[in-house]
Amino acid sequence: MHTVCGHAYDDYIHMVRSFHGAAAPGMLLGGYMVDLGLQNISQGQIFDAICETGQCLPDAIQLLTPCTVGNGWLKILPLGRFALALYDKYEGFGVRVSMDHHLLRNKPGIKEWYYKLKPKKEQNTDRLIQEIVQAETGLFRVESVRIQSNLLKKSSMGPTGNCPVCGEGYPIQDGRMCRACQGESPYVLHELHAAEK
Amino acid sequence: MHTVCGHAYDDYIHMVRSFHGAAAPGMLLGGYMVDLGLQNISQGQIFDAICETGQCLPDAIQLLTPCTVGNGWLKILPLGRFALALYDKYEGFGVRVSMDHHLLRNKPGIKEWYYKLKPKKEQNTDRLIQEIVQAETGLFRVESVRIQSNLLKKSSMGPTGNCPVCGEGYPIQDGRMCRACQGESPYVLHELHAAEK
Repeated sequence: MHTVCGHAYDDYIHMVRSFHGAAAPGMLLGGYMVDLGLQNISQGQIFDAICETGQCLPDAIQLLTPCTVGNGWLKILPLGRFALALYDKYEGFGVRVSMDHHLLRNKPGIKEWYYKLKPKKEQNTDRLIQEIVQAETGLFRVESVRIQSNLLKKSSMGPTGNCPVCGEGYPIQDGRMCRACQGESPYVLHELHAAEK
Repeated sequence: MHTVCGHAYDDYIHMVRSFHGAAAPGMLLGGYMVDLGLQNISQGQIFDAICETGQCLPDAIQLLTPCTVGNGWLKILPLGRFALALYDKYEGFGVRVSMDHHLLRNKPGIKEWYYKLKPKKEQNTDRLIQEIVQAETGLFRVESVRIQSNLLKKSSMGPTGNCPVCGEGYPIQDGRMCRACQGESPYVLHELHAAEK
């Protein structure tokens, strides 16, 4: 049985189910993509990651590399492309791995899923999974890339103060009050509570 | 020894090191915050999560709940507040857990860290960790909230097509070409390649 980033395939599936909830096609593809990315950077290199979609792929990166959203080593950019990049965090040189549609020609199951040719319920999931697992790392394009320098800077939150409206700590650089109190709060009731004060 | 979401404290620290890289203060606080959140929703309830900061806290949510960024059940909003919400995904009713600065009065270590009163290297990390672990879930405010209805809708990417510029699959609703080719690409070299075509 083949491996995904050094994990036996079945172990990877177990990790995926435990973290992501289900062995989704995007998580299988993502596993092979991360594997291919790691094969193409220097061994032992300390790297950051960019994920060009928020769907599935960030979880493969988080499971298989040291990069997570919470530690700041993984950035998710909403570009809508099923692609990732691993790059050295100082100079920005790295590798990008993306779905290559030229390699999907004989993969009707993957095409059906990727291009949403049918509603999900009508798709042939068994064929889809089989095609992904058979192809392993064979569905992707690998490019050398350099990340733009503005994305390499570690963003500092700067000093923290208490918001004069909600009373909670917030980065003072956001303005006179926190962004939630400036109108970005996602809550209905919370705003009512604030108004009652 | 106490537990964090049912995990022995030492096991949680091990999980944190393995996933996040280090047992950061924010991950310890985050563990207790998720624990408190789960105590305040109905047992067995299926929930989504909002995290109001991108720093540390999303990783505690991803480690301790079924919600991840890649499966879409965790949304990270850049509000700069150290707070999270767990809520039922259909009606939006739930609970919000946030740092309560009134409860930090006798916690000089946490205050030093939270308000960045000293450069990180000069902070007393041992005292900080000790204060967090001693307080367990005692540093936080719990509120009932309702999430605004526009955040409850599951965003659909819609149909996928190939971008006429880079040739990769992208959500057609993004426009005539993908967002990367519209100018949002994070890469230097990739753009050069595209220009050479």
